[in-house]
Amino acid sequence: MKARVHVTLKTGVLDPQGKAIQHALAGLGFAGIEAVRQGKFIEIELRDSDPGEARRRVEAMCKDLLANPVIENYAIDIEAG
Amino acid sequence: MKARVHVTLKTGVLDPQGKAIQHALAGLGFAGIEAVRQGKFIEIELRDSDPGEARRRVEAMCKDLLANPVIENYAIDIEAG
Repeated sequence: MKARVHVTLKTGVLDPQGKAIQHALAGLGFAGIEAVRQGKFIEIELRDSDPGEARRRVEAMCKDLLANPVIENYAIDIEAG
Repeated sequence: MKARVHVTLKTGVLDPQGKAIQHALAGLGFAGIEAVRQGKFIEIELRDSDPGEARRRVEAMCKDLLANPVIENYAIDIEAG
């Protein structure tokens, strides 16, 4: 079973990495870019067979390690198979 | 218009960051984790109004800056609005 986790900065939290990308793109000649935000994308291959249990475990992983709940949001997608 | 870009390491490319997460999760007591891969997730807010044109431009951004096509794959989702 595969879990896909998106970890993104909360609205209002400064994202210097996103700003750096935005400026680099502008420097390369890409116009009309209003904002860039960079987050993390984590794919976890699990031995679990129950999707509900897998989601519960991945949620605990997010809270314990993958995300900083003070400044980051996380979203979990569970894909069977 | 918003573009969501996933940049992931190609299959076969070593992912030390993913391995570090996997070992840290095991150290925290999470069992049954077979693999972890970490990628990047980039959200770009564009002034474009044509989804096809937006996709073409974001594809150019991926090739020029966001991804290293030698070792990374990228996937683009365009969301109108």
